[in-house]
Amino acid sequence: MKLVTIDDVRAAADRIRPHVVRTPLLAARWGDPDRPLWIKPESLQPIGAFKVRGAFNAVAAVKDDVTDVVAYSSGNHAQAVAYAAAAFGLRAHIVMPEETPAVKVQATRDLGARVVLCAAGRREAVAEQVLRDTGGAMIPPFDHPDVIAGQGTIGLEIAEDLPSVRTVLVPVSGGGLASGIGTAISALCPDAAVFGVEPELAADTAEALRVGHRVDWSIEDRNRTIADGLRSQPSALTFAHLQRVLDSVLTVSEDEIRAAVRELLYRAHLVAEPSGAVALAAYRQASTPPGPTVVILSGGNVEPGMLAQILAERTPG
Amino acid sequence: MKLVTIDDVRAAADRIRPHVVRTPLLAARWGDPDRPLWIKPESLQPIGAFKVRGAFNAVAAVKDDVTDVVAYSSGNHAQAVAYAAAAFGLRAHIVMPEETPAVKVQATRDLGARVVLCAAGRREAVAEQVLRDTGGAMIPPFDHPDVIAGQGTIGLEIAEDLPSVRTVLVPVSGGGLASGIGTAISALCPDAAVFGVEPELAADTAEALRVGHRVDWSIEDRNRTIADGLRSQPSALTFAHLQRVLDSVLTVSEDEIRAAVRELLYRAHLVAEPSGAVALAAYRQASTPPGPTVVILSGGNVEPGMLAQILAERTPG
Repeated sequence: MKLVTIDDVRAAADRIRPHVVRTPLLAARWGDPDRPLWIKPESLQPIGAFKVRGAFNAVAAVKDDVTDVVAYSSGNHAQAVAYAAAAFGLRAHIVMPEETPAVKVQATRDLGARVVLCAAGRREAVAEQVLRDTGGAMIPPFDHPDVIAGQGTIGLEIAEDLPSVRTVLVPVSGGGLASGIGTAISALCPDAAVFGVEPELAADTAEALRVGHRVDWSIEDRNRTIADGLRSQPSALTFAHLQRVLDSVLTVSEDEIRAAVRELLYRAHLVAEPSGAVALAAYRQASTPPGPTVVILSGGNVEPGMLAQILAERTPG
Repeated sequence: MKLVTIDDVRAAADRIRPHVVRTPLLAARWGDPDRPLWIKPESLQPIGAFKVRGAFNAVAAVKDDVTDVVAYSSGNHAQAVAYAAAAFGLRAHIVMPEETPAVKVQATRDLGARVVLCAAGRREAVAEQVLRDTGGAMIPPFDHPDVIAGQGTIGLEIAEDLPSVRTVLVPVSGGGLASGIGTAISALCPDAAVFGVEPELAADTAEALRVGHRVDWSIEDRNRTIADGLRSQPSALTFAHLQRVLDSVLTVSEDEIRAAVRELLYRAHLVAEPSGAVALAAYRQASTPPGPTVVILSGGNVEPGMLAQILAERTPG
């Protein structure tokens, strides 16, 4: 299997540069003195999540060959593909389950995409039909080298801004983000460790890396976590990357995730969705090696009601 | 009276570069199409507010002549001076009123400063005594050319990142921020308008610019606004700058401020203190000229209880 290389990541960086925010690496002075803490706030991207990086790189790769792109997602990937397609003058068709919250459907339409609602469990079949009807290209959320290379540009920026980095903590779901960042960091900062982070309630990849092959957790199990962006599982392609570039996967509890959302809000002045806060939650377990440590804040799209509930639980001391 | 020049601002930028975050200018795609909206998130600075820029520039200017610096503040300026002093190996003495919340006193001490608590209304006299005792230098919150030049570096960055800017909206309290940004923008983007923004309940500068001289609003009146960072009044020095560089001062209601805090949180994923949200509140009044518009988000240090209350009021539609 051909894996993404640092050259692919560099090419992606050149391609997406005009379209994404070069997010600052923020020193969080309240971190542990032995493990100086830095935050990479991908919540500041357009559409509020790192997904624009991979989406732009993948859409840019097909933009001269098609007039339509297709994706299925009810999350940040939907808006990322819609946003990237609009920037290149392509039509985006986003297949979403009927139960998707109206606010997310509207946000995707507001970006100029056509939303195709479908019955639960039918989204892949419906997307295939849209592909045939339009002759367009599919933009998958993580299972594609161009998507992985696009997410890897975050690792490139970390290596530029903090060459002395020793630890990078990255949320893992489908594994595109961790595959890309791990590829860049292992090439450019070979002394640094890269850890994936999962909720305990959706820790299929932690188990998979231990046993040496992908494992399947039921969607009912994975749906238990509040971190709704971390309920996917790696593909063969991303798992091959993760085996190569991750030191291991750390797991965090639901309470630890909620506490990390509060810490990011009150101390870093950044809004994180629960999925975006797991890397800080893992840092707080204090089990990672000494040295400069970067946590990836992957996204900020939290439902107002959920955020209000998390904030009401406890205020920081 | 000698006013700060663009050369002073450029010198400040060189001096503070290693110590402050070069904040990104974030495109807010949900703005008015006729007035594309950009946010300058100074909440991402160390200590969570723009104040580090002026403090670093002013402390750097005296660091070879003194071993101690003194400031009086219960707000962001206290932490900014403490932070800058620590970076240069100086001792900071911060005079704070006895009624300052314990969390702010502790945050200032955590930065290595000595906190001197004093009775209400006595802070200037106590600060003078500390100055005599230590032979140190006073770092004022706004009434100093080096502080104004430091805050002006924000304007320099805006001009670099968005040369086509037509409108800049800046919170006004003591006026150091607006003086500095206005100086930079009027020099580098002469076609752009710079508006100050005040709460209606502390709109002394709006009135002062209309009548052509400083006016005094009682502190009881100014204390009515939730925007606790905007209760100061310009000095002769800052007012002279404001008369020269501001087009006018817009005023916003308390409800508009609270709505802007919510909008920044949910749409930009940024935490703003009420004082930091007034520029977006003014943008939302839709009375500013067409063209690319920058709002300064000046700081993010909001009390958890206050933020929870603002969020509970209404969720965005």
